Formats: sequence, structure tokens, C-alpha cells
Amino acid sequence: MPEAADAPGGRRDRRRIALRLEYDGTAYCGSQYQDNGPSIQSVLEVAINNLTGEAVRVAFAGRTDAGVHAVGQVVAFDTSSTLASRVVQGGLNHLLPEDVAVTAVATVDNEFDPRRHATNRSYRYVIENRGSRPALDRRRAWHVPEPLDQRAMADAAGQLVGEHDFAAFSGKYEGETRRTLRHCEVHRAGDRLTVEMEAQAFLPHQVRRTVGPLVEVGLGRMREAELVTVLQRAAPSSAGPAAPAHGLYLVSVAYDVPVFEREDDG
Amino acid sequence: MPEAADAPGGRRDRRRIALRLEYDGTAYCGSQYQDNGPSIQSVLEVAINNLTGEAVRVAFAGRTDAGVHAVGQVVAFDTSSTLASRVVQGGLNHLLPEDVAVTAVATVDNEFDPRRHATNRSYRYVIENRGSRPALDRRRAWHVPEPLDQRAMADAAGQLVGEHDFAAFSGKYEGETRRTLRHCEVHRAGDRLTVEMEAQAFLPHQVRRTVGPLVEVGLGRMREAELVTVLQRAAPSSAGPAAPAHGLYLVSVAYDVPVFEREDDG
Repeated sequence: MPEAADAPGGRRDRRRIALRLEYDGTAYCGSQYQDNGPSIQSVLEVAINNLTGEAVRVAFAGRTDAGVHAVGQVVAFDTSSTLASRVVQGGLNHLLPEDVAVTAVATVDNEFDPRRHATNRSYRYVIENRGSRPALDRRRAWHVPEPLDQRAMADAAGQLVGEHDFAAFSGKYEGETRRTLRHCEVHRAGDRLTVEMEAQAFLPHQVRRTVGPLVEVGLGRMREAELVTVLQRAAPSSAGPAAPAHGLYLVSVAYDVPVFEREDDG
Repeated sequence: MPEAADAPGGRRDRRRIALRLEYDGTAYCGSQYQDNGPSIQSVLEVAINNLTGEAVRVAFAGRTDAGVHAVGQVVAFDTSSTLASRVVQGGLNHLLPEDVAVTAVATVDNEFDPRRHATNRSYRYVIENRGSRPALDRRRAWHVPEPLDQRAMADAAGQLVGEHDFAAFSGKYEGETRRTLRHCEVHRAGDRLTVEMEAQAFLPHQVRRTVGPLVEVGLGRMREAELVTVLQRAAPSSAGPAAPAHGLYLVSVAYDVPVFEREDDG
């Protein structure tokens, strides 16, 4: 009986759909399946299954850890559903938990790979730099109570821009550790510091393992020259502890051809 | 036995302490005691009791409803505790739930009344103006999916500035409804609209009952001239429905003499 619905040749016409996702990572064990709690992937695949009746596997542009947020994660999946993009977006936003939202939908080339085809990834790390702990942003920013020298952090961040072996700023990783960091800036607005980083690809935990040492520089515990030495020595994971997950945001993922150009934001 | 701790004459030396509070109003039934759940007042009085051993009543500069947030609420209470301000702040931040924080502490004049002595109150209302619902700010902003005309809203808001009878923009209120609105501005940054309002004192629900009609103007459902007519007629609560609570923030409360001048932000 199920075969009756299939197209001639036993193969349905399938299409690949890309979604742009925003999520609050607080309640999740991360973007991908894990044993220790719900993931963005698991709630998304359940919602797609409820919408289309199909069991799908979703591919992510970038992994995010437990507690890490996204405003522009990109995922893709295949479906034989003929629902219009707008209906997919509305339906998924109805079915998904309130801390995960689809902000754009597009039908893409069948070969589109959200991870391998990404040409730029942009991350933001948010620090609340004030004496008292934050109440409103307690899950959305790292609280650093001692005063941070934004200028020193920005100068040190500038030393990391360019093509380098970033092994010192990576978590455990077996592969090639050369990367090109296009952008690494530190800004202050009142009590809030933001670190903005961009690259085609990052090493595991690279953003958090860069923010950690930059904060050491901001606290006066590490000099810019020491950070440069750590970079040049490239000893794996030697730059110091990672900043906590809950200050990190995956802001956007870019492709050679804009994926959501015409169907942006419902 | 308790009397032994009292000063001669059976009366301890008491001092008045002012606190500046930040809170996420999501989990609370509002700033003041109510029957239907925990209030900011109840968790604060419990924390003060745990710190000082005294049962105190806390006075608020302004009432906030269930779901309304604050970054600069001001409260005051009397205590015979001799703990330093810094210790009061650290102790309360340790004892309070994570969604309430003390951002400044000061010992104030024994006559200081946070509500009656306030010379300015500043509120912010945040709107997420985009097609898809927000995930990260789902409890922190009002989601308005249809495009809002910020310019039309800003122009209409300007018509409300000055001394007027604001009865049309008030919830149920028996007293005098003339107020002076010092500031009413509408700004846009990307998908985010903010309405900033300032006055020495507001009527009940005045900010939310102003934002509601301003959004009607932004949607093209009400013209600026109609809003002005509603203002001039001053028929109680006639301006239309209030905007929802979770987009509203009490930003700051000011006094003739700055309260937290020297003890700001620990």
C-alpha cells in the first residue's frame, strides 16, 4: 500500500529544504543528538515528521554545544512533501517548542550541504562586565565581575586575525588546524562586551577558547605578546580554558549563493 | 532576652537601605504580594530575612505587573543590621533566585520614600517586528508579525509628549489623570522597535496602553489624528487594548539627589 503513493519507478520526487533557525540553547544538550537530553536536532526532526509524515535526518551547518544559542543556524533535509515554503515555516513554528523558531525557509539545490558549502560563519560572544550578576541575561551572557580593558582585548584580538595554525585555540581535534580568521573584534556598549568572530570554518570550541584568553588579557593577567606566543607555538589546546557556553551565539552562515534571498523571514 | 539586644530606651538604631533591582518578571505574579504566585517582593523579603534575621516590609518605586521586567527598580526597607552595603549586596545576590539581582545598594535618609520621592521614571517597551516568532526573546519582547511603520509611530508618539489628561491611556484609576510625559520616542534597529517613555509618574498600565495604540498606528489601522482625538477626549481607558506585559521594562527611577551615586554597581 505505501508503494501506491510512490512515483513511477518506485522513487518519489524529493526536494531539499533549507531552514534558518533561531534557538535558545539553554534547555538543550546541543544541536546534535546526544544521550543526555533533548537536542535541537531531535525536536526539529520530530516537528518535521509531524508536518510531513516522513522520518528525516537533518544536517546542520555548525554544531553548537549545550547552552549555546543561535540566531542564524542553517539546516537542510530532504522531503517528498510538496508543501509551500511558507507553509513549512508556519507549520514548523507551530509544532516546534517555543525556544526554537524557523526564521526562513527555502527550497535548495539537491546537492546543497549546509556544512561543507558554507563560505563564512559568524559568531558572537556576549560578556556582562559588571559587579553584580545579571538577572535578565543570566542564560545569555558570561558574567565577568572584574573590570575588563576592552582596548587591550581588541588589540590582542587583532593579532589573531589572518591565516594561522590555531591548534592552541582548539579543543581536541585530529585534523588540519590551519584556519583563516577573517574578523575578530571586541566592542563595549556600557556593561556589555561583545566579541565578534568570522571565518569560513572554525576548529572545535575555537570561539570559546579564544574568548577565554582574551578575557585573561582584559583582566591584565595575560599580555598581548604572551597571546601571540601561544598562537605561534601552536601547542594543542594550550591557550587556556574556554569561556562558558551560554555567552555564545551562532549569528549567521553564508554561502556563495544566498540561500534565503527571496524567501527571507516570512 | 530579645530586649537585651536593643539600644537604651528599648529602641534599636535603625537605618533605611535602598536597593536597585534587576529582574526577569517571567516567573513572578508582579512586583507586589499577590495570592496567585511568588512576587518580587516576597522573594526579596525572604532573602532580607535570611540575611538580617529581621522581618521587613519592602517599599517599591513602581509596581510592575506579572511578566514585566526591570533593570532599574528601586526599593527601600528599614533594618537594624550594621552590615556594610557591599555585604548586603553580595549576601542578597547569593540568597535571591537567579532571576532577581541587586545591582546597587545605598544607605539613605530615614525619610526616603522610593515611590513618592521619585522625580523621573523611565520605561522601555520592546517589539520584535518580523514574520517569524522570536525564540530567544520570546519572554522579553512583543512579537508583531506585520510590518510596522516606525516613522508613523514616532510622529504619533511625539503628539503625546507634554502635560495632558491621559485618562484615555490609563487602566482603571480614581485619581487625577493629568500627567506630564517628558519623553515618548520610537526607534528601530533591524527587526527590533523600542518605545522609550519618561515621566515623573505614570498612570496604571499607561506605558502598555500607549504602546498598544502606537502599534495600531504603525499597522496603519489608526491615524495620528485619531490618536490625538482620543487623547483630547480623555474618555477613561478608551485608547484601546494594552500591549502585553512581557515587552515592558522599568529601566530607571531618578531622584533629586542620586541615591546610588557612590555605591554604584559593587
